[in-house]
Order: sequence, then C-alpha cells, then structure tokens
Amino acid sequence: MAGSVLGTIFKITTWGESHGEGVGVVVDGCPAGLPLSEEDIQAYLNRRRPGQSRFSTPRSESDCVRILSGVFEGRTTGTPISLLVPNENQRSKDYSEIASYYRPGHADYTFDAKYGFRDYRGGGRSSGRETIGRVAAGAVAAKMLKEMGISFLTYTRSIGPVEISGERFDADQIGDNPLYMPDAVAAEQAEHYLEECMKGRDSAGGVVECVITGMPAGIGETVFDKLDASLAKAVFSIGAVKGVEIGSGFSAAEKKGSENNDAFVTDGTGRITKQTNHAGGILGGMSDGDPIVFRVAIKPTPSVAHVQQTVKRDGTPVEISIAGRHDPVIVPRAVVVVESMAAVTVADLLLVNMGARMDFLKKIYTEE
Amino acid sequence: MAGSVLGTIFKITTWGESHGEGVGVVVDGCPAGLPLSEEDIQAYLNRRRPGQSRFSTPRSESDCVRILSGVFEGRTTGTPISLLVPNENQRSKDYSEIASYYRPGHADYTFDAKYGFRDYRGGGRSSGRETIGRVAAGAVAAKMLKEMGISFLTYTRSIGPVEISGERFDADQIGDNPLYMPDAVAAEQAEHYLEECMKGRDSAGGVVECVITGMPAGIGETVFDKLDASLAKAVFSIGAVKGVEIGSGFSAAEKKGSENNDAFVTDGTGRITKQTNHAGGILGGMSDGDPIVFRVAIKPTPSVAHVQQTVKRDGTPVEISIAGRHDPVIVPRAVVVVESMAAVTVADLLLVNMGARMDFLKKIYTEE
Amino acid sequence: MAGSVLGTIFKITTWGESHGEGVGVVVDGCPAGLPLSEEDIQAYLNRRRPGQSRFSTPRSESDCVRILSGVFEGRTTGTPISLLVPNENQRSKDYSEIASYYRPGHADYTFDAKYGFRDYRGGGRSSGRETIGRVAAGAVAAKMLKEMGISFLTYTRSIGPVEISGERFDADQIGDNPLYMPDAVAAEQAEHYLEECMKGRDSAGGVVECVITGMPAGIGETVFDKLDASLAKAVFSIGAVKGVEIGSGFSAAEKKGSENNDAFVTDGTGRITKQTNHAGGILGGMSDGDPIVFRVAIKPTPSVAHVQQTVKRDGTPVEISIAGRHDPVIVPRAVVVVESMAAVTVADLLLVNMGARMDFLKKIYTEE
Amino acid sequence: MAGSVLGTIFKITTWGESHGEGVGVVVDGCPAGLPLSEEDIQAYLNRRRPGQSRFSTPRSESDCVRILSGVFEGRTTGTPISLLVPNENQRSKDYSEIASYYRPGHADYTFDAKYGFRDYRGGGRSSGRETIGRVAAGAVAAKMLKEMGISFLTYTRSIGPVEISGERFDADQIGDNPLYMPDAVAAEQAEHYLEECMKGRDSAGGVVECVITGMPAGIGETVFDKLDASLAKAVFSIGAVKGVEIGSGFSAAEKKGSENNDAFVTDGTGRITKQTNHAGGILGGMSDGDPIVFRVAIKPTPSVAHVQQTVKRDGTPVEISIAGRHDPVIVPRAVVVVESMAAVTVADLLLVNMGARMDFLKKIYTEE
Repeated sequence: MAGSVLGTIFKITTWGESHGEGVGVVVDGCPAGLPLSEEDIQAYLNRRRPGQSRFSTPRSESDCVRILSGVFEGRTTGTPISLLVPNENQRSKDYSEIASYYRPGHADYTFDAKYGFRDYRGGGRSSGRETIGRVAAGAVAAKMLKEMGISFLTYTRSIGPVEISGERFDADQIGDNPLYMPDAVAAEQAEHYLEECMKGRDSAGGVVECVITGMPAGIGETVFDKLDASLAKAVFSIGAVKGVEIGSGFSAAEKKGSENNDAFVTDGTGRITKQTNHAGGILGGMSDGDPIVFRVAIKPTPSVAHVQQTVKRDGTPVEISIAGRHDPVIVPRAVVVVESMAAVTVADLLLVNMGARMDFLKKIYTEE
Repeated sequence: MAGSVLGTIFKITTWGESHGEGVGVVVDGCPAGLPLSEEDIQAYLNRRRPGQSRFSTPRSESDCVRILSGVFEGRTTGTPISLLVPNENQRSKDYSEIASYYRPGHADYTFDAKYGFRDYRGGGRSSGRETIGRVAAGAVAAKMLKEMGISFLTYTRSIGPVEISGERFDADQIGDNPLYMPDAVAAEQAEHYLEECMKGRDSAGGVVECVITGMPAGIGETVFDKLDASLAKAVFSIGAVKGVEIGSGFSAAEKKGSENNDAFVTDGTGRITKQTNHAGGILGGMSDGDPIVFRVAIKPTPSVAHVQQTVKRDGTPVEISIAGRHDPVIVPRAVVVVESMAAVTVADLLLVNMGARMDFLKKIYTEE
Repeated sequence: MAGSVLGTIFKITTWGESHGEGVGVVVDGCPAGLPLSEEDIQAYLNRRRPGQSRFSTPRSESDCVRILSGVFEGRTTGTPISLLVPNENQRSKDYSEIASYYRPGHADYTFDAKYGFRDYRGGGRSSGRETIGRVAAGAVAAKMLKEMGISFLTYTRSIGPVEISGERFDADQIGDNPLYMPDAVAAEQAEHYLEECMKGRDSAGGVVECVITGMPAGIGETVFDKLDASLAKAVFSIGAVKGVEIGSGFSAAEKKGSENNDAFVTDGTGRITKQTNHAGGILGGMSDGDPIVFRVAIKPTPSVAHVQQTVKRDGTPVEISIAGRHDPVIVPRAVVVVESMAAVTVADLLLVNMGARMDFLKKIYTEE
Repeated sequence: MAGSVLGTIFKITTWGESHGEGVGVVVDGCPAGLPLSEEDIQAYLNRRRPGQSRFSTPRSESDCVRILSGVFEGRTTGTPISLLVPNENQRSKDYSEIASYYRPGHADYTFDAKYGFRDYRGGGRSSGRETIGRVAAGAVAAKMLKEMGISFLTYTRSIGPVEISGERFDADQIGDNPLYMPDAVAAEQAEHYLEECMKGRDSAGGVVECVITGMPAGIGETVFDKLDASLAKAVFSIGAVKGVEIGSGFSAAEKKGSENNDAFVTDGTGRITKQTNHAGGILGGMSDGDPIVFRVAIKPTPSVAHVQQTVKRDGTPVEISIAGRHDPVIVPRAVVVVESMAAVTVADLLLVNMGARMDFLKKIYTEE
C-alpha cells in the first residue's frame, strides 16, 4: 500500500510522477447519472496550473485532462472514471547532481529511507504534480455536491505575516488578485511581501481557509470517521501542510466553555441553527447544518535559491543552492487542492451516510 | 459504517456507550508473540480514569479491563484481542429533561439529525467513556512499539492561556502535578486559572503535545496515508479536538523557506539527521528518524453550570444550566488518549511499511 | 490483520477462542431504527447450538447472547452493536498431548507455521465456536433484510452420498428432522448413513443450499465486489467449506450457451423476469430480481476416532485417535452459519448500493 | 464504490469499458525494487489476446500495454504503477438495436436496474475487455511472486463434457494446443466438440484448474480473509465464473473423514508435509506448504447466434440472434485471467502476513 487510495464509497486512486508519462486518478464510486465533461474538470485544473502570475513557477504546462472511462453520453455511468493528464515540458536535463544529495525540506531522504532508492527527477511522486490527480477527482466530487446544493468557498487567508481582515472580506475579490485573497488591501501587501522574499532568494508560506455551505446536518461518522477528522486527514495529506484547525481551532484552547459554546436557536423558518459558529459547523464529528469552516497551514516552499547546508547520500556535507523554476509561494495554487480534498471527503461521507437509517433504506428500496 | 473501525493491519474496533453494559475494543492484527497482560492495559486506563484530582469529575469509576481473547500463556496469539471494561456507577437518574433539549457544544443535535433519535443517557456514544476503547487499544500498540524501541512522551502544553516554558521543561515533572505539565511553575499557574474557572461555573481548554522517539525513518505512506495525515485524523477523531499541527505547525506559515528548512547533517555516528526539527520529524509524509512532535488543541468542556440558551427538539427556546459531575478541564485526561491514538497509528503504519521493499520480503520469506 | 473484520458499510468484527472468556462480534454500521432484541439473535444462535440431536456433539452449551451496546429502547442506534456469548463448559483437561502433534485436517500445523505457536485448547480461534460471532451478526443482518422484504431459505442438500430429491422438496420439513433437510425420505436415508459412519468411528460431509428471495435487482458491485464473488468469499471463509457454486454452478461448464442462457420474459404484472434461473439470480455480479441460489460443499469433520497417522511438532511420526465429543457431521449446524454469512453479505451490498445513483442521493437529501 | 478496487496492501484499481478510450489498472502497493518491464506485462496480456485460434473471436486487438508510472530505471519505485492499454478496433457501428433489448446471460438488464441506464457499446464495463486490467496487474504480482519462488501452472481442465485425463497429464503440452489443455488427446476431442458447437451456432463452457507451488506455509488470515476465501472471491469476480472449489472440492462432501483427511508426514529433508493433498494446500484458511490446487467453472459464452427469446427495455418480447465476432468458448482465454487473479490474491496476502509475528518485525526493523 503506497497509500494512494482514499475513500470508502467515493474512492479515488491517484498515480504518477513528475517525469513519467503523465499523472492521473481513477474515481471509483461516483454515482451514475451525474452530468460530467472534460470542461468541468479542466476548470478545476486551471486553478492550480502554474505560470499564471509572477508568483508561481514560469513552467508552462497546459495540464489538459482526458476522460478515459466512466462517462457515456455526457453522464457518469457508475463505473470507474479514469482521468489522465499527460506530462509535457519534461526537460531532458541532467539530474545526477540532484540525485546525489538530500534537499532540505523535501522528501528525498525519506524516500530513500523507505524504498532504498528514489525517482529523483523533479521530485518523483512527491512532486507538486501529484496534486493534479487530487484536483481532477475534486472536480468530480464538487460537481456531484453542487447538484446536492453543497458549495465551497476557498481562498488564501494569509501569506507570511500578511492576513486578510474580517472587515474587508469580499468573496468577489478572490479571483481578482493572483493570490486568491478575498481582500484587495491584504493582497497588495502580500504581493509586496512576496517580492521582498523573491529578492532575498527566499520563499513564503501561508494559510488557506475553506468554507463549505449547504451541508445537510448529520454527515460524518461517529467515532474515527468523523467529518472533521476525515477533512483533517485529507488536507494534511497535501504535501506542504503543517497544521489544520476547525472553527475556533487553536484559539478555542484558550477560551472558556461559556465563551466557546454556540447557543442553539431557531432561524426565521423554524430551522434549528447556532447563534455563533465557533464549532466550525461540526459537532461530535457530524455536520450541524451551519457552514463548515477550516484553515490549513502551509509551509514556505522548501526550494529556495538561498545557499543551504545538506549532505550527500553517504553523509558527506555539501553546500547547495536550488536553481530553477520554483514557486516562491505555493499557497495560491494550494487553494484549489485544499478545496478538492474537502470535496472528495464530503462526497464520500455523504454517500456513506445514506446507510445510516432504516427509513433511508425504505425510501430507496420500498417506495415507488 | 458508524466509523468505529480504524487501521489497515493493526485494526481496532471500539464500541460502547456511557450507560450500556460496558465499553470495549477489539484489536485485530496485533502481531503474535507480544507479551501482554491486563496490567499493561490497566496502567494506561488508569491515566485517563476520572476522580484523581479536583480538576476532574468526582465520579469514581474503577474502569477495570478484562482480556476476553487473543492472549495465551501471556503472549498475543495473532488473533483478535477483545478488551472489555464494564460500566458501573450508572446512576438510575431521570434523563427526560436532558432528552428534551440540545446541549450547546455537545453532539445531541447532530446525533438526532443523523440517526433520527439518540441514546441521551450520559452522552451515549459521544460520551467521554468512548475513549476507553481507544486507550485500551493504545496500550497494546504502545507495548508493541516499546519492543521496537519506539516510545512516547505526552503532556499538557497549555491550559487556557497558561503555557509551559521551554526553559523550565522537565519531563520528570509530568507525573508530579495533576495537570500532567512538564513545568512545575506553569502547572501551579494553571491550577490557579482552573480554580477561577470553577468558581465562575466555567471550564477551560488547552493544548496537548506528543513527542515520539525511536522511530525508524521511512514510516508513513506516500500520498494519502502519510504519517502526519494519519496522525491528524487519529487525534482529530477525539471528541473535543479542534486543531492539530506538526513541528512548526501554524507558525511555519509565517516563516520564510530559509528559516523553516532543516539542514541535513550527520551525527557523531555517521547517521544522517537534521540540525533543527521544524519539520517535526516528518518529511513528505514519512518519518525522517528524528523525534516526531505534534500538538493538539482541545476545546473547553462544553458542560458548564453557567446558564446557557438553547432549544428543545421542536425548536422551542429554553434556558439551561448543566448540573452534575463534569470535568472543568479534560486536557489532562486527554493526554493519554492522544498518546493512544498516536500509538495505534504508528503501530499500523509500521506494519504496513513491512511490504514496502522487495528486500524486506526476502528477509522474511527466503532467509533462514 | 488477523482478518476478523468483514464488510464495507455493514462491518462485522468477530473475536474469541474456544477456551477464552467468550466469543463475540461487533456489528458496526447497522442502520439506526431497526427493532432488535436479544431474542432475535438467540433464535439464530439456537439453530447452531450443539447437543440438539444424536448427530451433533453432546457438549451442552447454552450460548446465551448479551447485547452490550448499540441498542436503546429496543431499537438500534446506528452505533456499534457489541454481542457477547460467554464460554462455559470449558473442561479443565490436559491438553499437553494434543499440543504435541498436528491433527490431520485441522489448522494446528498452519497456525504454528503462521504465528510460531498456537492456542491449542479446543482448536483456539479455528474452533467451530468462532462461528458464533458470525451467526450473531447474521441474525442482525437478517432482521434488517426482513424489514426490506428479503428472506432466506437454507437447508441441507446432501449428506455424504444422500441427496434430496427435487420432486419431494418440501420446505416445511426442514425443521422436522435433525439434519435440516427439506425431504423426509432423504433425511431418513441420511440418518442411516450417519449411523453407519458413527459405527465406523468416522464422519461425513455434505452440501448446504441457500435461496434468497425478495432481492431488488441491481445489488452487487460491478467488478471485484460482485454479489456472487462476495457471497463466495463470505461462505468460503467458514471453516470446512471446500467449494461454492451459484445457479447451475459446475454443471454450467458442461452445457451449451443455448441451454444455459435464461430467456428474459415479463411476468403477469409486467415485471421483467427470467424463464429459467440457471444464473442463480445473478447476472454480471448483480442481482437480477429472481431468487439467488447457491450451494456450499462442506468436508467431513476431520476429528475422527479412527486411528490416523501424523507427526509431532518436531516431525516425529505418531499414531493418534481423536477421542471426545465431536460432531459426526457438521453440515446441519453449518446451515445457519451459511445463511448468516449470506445475510451479512447481502446487507452490506444493499447499503453500498445506496450510493449508486444520483437520483437515490436526491431522494435522501433533497426530498421532504 | 463500483467495486473496482481489490486488496489490502497490494491494491489494484481497474477501469475501462469496451468502447471508451482504453482500459487499465493502477497497482498501488507493489514493493519497491522489483525489476519490471512492459515486456513482462505484455507476455501475460498476449495469453488472453483474441484472434489466436479459430476458437476465439477473430477481432484483432494488439492490446499493447504502456507503463505510465511507478517504474524507474527498470525497477518498481514503491509508488503506484499505472498501466494503460488503449482501445482500438472500435468499429463505429450502430448500437441502437442492441441498446433496445436485454441479451440473455449478459449484464444488460442488471446494469440498467442498478444504474438507471448503461453504456451498451460492446458490453461496456461488463465486456471481456475489463479483464485486461486484471491480467496486467496479475503480471506484476506474478513477477513479484516469482522472485519469492512462487509459481503458477494454470490450464483448461475441461471443455464442455471433455475432461483431461490424470494419466495423460503433461504440463508441456499446455502451450501446444489452442485450448491450453495439458493432454493432447483431450485437446483434440475438445476441438471436435467445439467445432460441433460452432456448427450449431452455439457455445461451450469448461473448467480451469490452477496449481500454485512454492508457497510458504502460513499465508492467509484466520477468519474472513482466509487464503481460500480470498481466492474464491478473486476468481468468482471474473465475468462468467459459476463455481469454485479447492482441493477435493465438492467431492469432499461425499467422502468420509478418514478418507478425506491428509496424514502429516515428513519428507526426505525433514520438512513436514502431507501424504495426500485433498485439502488443496490450505488448512484453516492458511497455506500448508503443499501445492495449492483449485478449479473454476466457467459458463458457456452467452453470445450465441442461436435464435433466443428476450424482452426490450419496456418488457415487449423480442426474438434475437446475436451476430458478430464472439468466442465460441472463453475458457482458454480465461486461463490467464484466473492465474492473474490468483497471483494478485497471493501477493496481497503474502504482504499482509509480514505483520503476523513480532519476530518478523524485529527482523525488519531491528536487525542490521
């Protein structure tokens, strides 16, 4: 188990390395009858494509997806959906140097430790290209969830020390700046910060926030497969993630119970909701019907042109400086990856939940 | 799938409610030949038992574990280990009031939303007693890992706003104060803070930190089943957890790449290690041989005697005040639960990793 | 993974050895709201209980089940149902002899080969008592399926060379003879055959047949988790099973396509059905709405009083004769075990199938 | 879950329809360091390729496999191996007629029943082309097992009523006749039988037998994931399979215990083995070190040119005759599919078993 399979009912299997023939994913368990086209998926992939601003690698990759199976006459058939994105722009360069040492902050050393050797070309399986399969699957999940009235709003909450302001929050601005921030002022500050980083041959990290609306209450299983636990695993499995928090998150640890509890109330329609949402839309591991809100900490890109100390495979010390086309910050490109992992997780737990109640079974199997 | 099964090879299934006959766990997949006794498990359960200080509920529960299967002549046989802790002290009280409304911060509402009704006695399956199965399984995992040279140091890092100091850190003090803090000064301050909370009929949260040492490098699978992702899910599935971070965690998001990267070096023995450990012992989702360090944010106990607003099942507003025997802070009791979930996760991935290399297979199957 | 967990949504975990404290099962994922009592489960267990005829071991075991969790006010809550059957009648006898050699036809040798040692008391985990957990889980599954209009008719089709006749088939007679045969004449012949076996200090095998009616069409997943494949695994995992066939089974291999194909027709109500049922109710791995019919070959009990050749652990030859209380035939007691495994399999795939279509999702989540 | 994922550690995901872009498989969890080339896989695929004799469809498909990921410098890297076989020869024909009715013996009706509609072109996901992914994965598994000394001998045991003779059994002849029979005389008789079938516009079934040698003892998990149960599921999931039996199989049901038991003995080297092998190399669900022997019943090809009765989607009766390029018998082409499913199953359980014993863990993690 290389751990490239995720999910119980909506089950995805990703594959592919940076410099192999391509990358892809097989989505097994998507319900039949969902309208799905390559355009639906391409729209998601375009959000993670590099080369769209001066803050991402200038590599140009078109990342065109092909649906190889599972869709017939524009609708999913219920059988596995195989999605392929061929690799291109694989410069035939000399990897012998990069193969000889361990880049700090990368998985070179641990791959060697685990498998005895590694595909050192462009990061191999630990390349950022691995996320293409996640995003392609996420596009399918999001399409399915959209039909159920569930949608996602995901954006950059902070870049380095620059954070968005609650007062200036404007979802419409997310697409208007290259950093996907819902706050034009913060975006401008963050751009300046990044330019300074780049001048210093350095890189930056940041925080991504995701808000899921339209969730029915009761999604998530009660002990290990809680909705928050499953979301945490899904997003923590993205390369550079170092922390995940839901609702009040770490700040909840400093509060008192009377402050942190959310009072239940009824809204105008008589529906039960909460006065506040410190819980982040999840109670006891199940959605409570309010928006789900979580944040993801992403470390600064480890590939920096700065001079760094490291060792060769045999332990000999060596001084390196990573040249080449690297993102000074991956946070903006990670936005759609986080959203995709959330979509895949919610889709799966939504399907799993269908077996939760005898009256659900009767609705499906005994009613006309 | 009520989601009460976890793991691929070392697979645990917990069961039980607060007011049923008991709680327990079945551990399937523990390797044969591990010395194991009820005392080994009881030692772990005693660390989470209530009534041990003025900061935990005065309910007295002996929580005595019985091994029902899977151990023969003092050693595990390789077959499922069934562990049972009978419930006692189930006061036959009137639950009709608590059944009628939704307690803020609890899972009452979401259980009803998911299943159509709920076992309202003492929280049912969402009771803190659910963690007994986790801890019993964790004790088995920790025993197995100890034989492999892997050990855990877990403690309270903060209670409300009171955090331990790095300079005063002293692991020997963890057992000397009721809050399991490795810093006597902070512990005293935290005790004062908690007393104030209790006077105000309120509760506190905090942060638990766990350090895993002795890990071989390369443990964790490469994409979805990364070690950090799996740890995140495991601990996030504990009732009151709102955030998890590894190594530098959320603070990594504010750093630059040149600061956050850990330089590889060789230690005195020629072994490759890192000069710093911002990564928290995990690179690319695999252990790098350095200590694994992660932190868990725990919200304040939602059961407070404070007057709270909420609604009844039909949406009618109601004012409540939760009386009874509740922990003003669950962080100290959560320490062993976090450690247990970490142990279960590491045990499973250690077993999964055995299939990672052809030379491992040859060592097992073709060597004498 | 000792392999004691089965299922995707309706997930069962069995545990327990012949001479431990007890045997049991945890059923995780049974839908909430199913009426369930200990009597429901006991009724199934009583069908496998020994000592009910001269053709089963005279050991008297009451095998009383206790529901430890997951049921509240007479209905399942959606959380794990833990079922316990305490062991009794564990004679404190001397096992040193049986521990020293390998019984032919038993798992003594393979347990030692796998785990390095074994719990030799009464067969340990490979004891027939292991099936108690299966039957208890099967009772829960069957109760759930009954509510959906799905029912099981399971019986002994043959004992040794004595087979039931199609013309004399009478389901009402199944409970009227100790061999659970739906044919009084064959039952009498089989009883004579068994008496001869017993006189010869020998044992017999046979075939169990199971018919499942009321199945909706379309249950079963399309490639690996086909309904027939899943049934085959489930029943093949029962101790003494050596073969499984569906519909025409092995005889289909000798037929021509024109003979074996079942013509589709419409019944009086306009429902599509098949003129014949050589397929055994399964096409392409999915139920076709007609009765599912499968057969299971069960080997003769390996414990015979006959003198047998075998070896000790060190390879020394030894002559043995297995004394004690053994069933001369286990086929009648296996009937309910086969039915239970079928019920568990169908329940799981019925739940899994709920996610097969977008219109199913809409029925659950968007309709009132 | 469309059920296209199989395995715990060696996990395969197949995808693809008859008339989509291609078919393929992702193998996740193959150990790193296994030499693997496209030729290794192609050799297996060539064994199932049509058009190689007058007894298989004259469609010519080259079925060329491409390795898209997971292999670097000729060795597996431990990451997912993605294998693609593009579809070709997809005649753009008119499927409107075939779309309108349900072919007897096919999955047309059940696909519609499950998913609400179906990809009717060439059988869609239930096409025989679905087995290409199985065989490609089987080739990888078989290569891995070969390195461990485990090999497979698989052949046609019978075609219709014509069975091989034990006395004439000659493994060398398997490749010398188009039916893969290890008996030249029977092969000739079978060829005559098939010619008669073809003249009668009819089809035939048969039995495939597989013998696995070199198995270490102790492989297979003890309760549900027994080796025989897992093999049964794996091969039963192949399209036309109607029965599976191990060792003596169904004939064991007619024997007495004293006949069916295999006496343990020691061979010349002191190794413990069995005098006979009625068990088929499996005791208590675990391999006993002797050859594993199982048989698989395959029904006659349902596509026959014979006139057949069936109904349209709306239930209207219709008379059909299936024209076109169909195999009069699929048994010879199924031989390698059966072997592939066996290889995949054994590979997985071999990897799973590595966690069975503490001394195995110590060998991997604590020895030099």
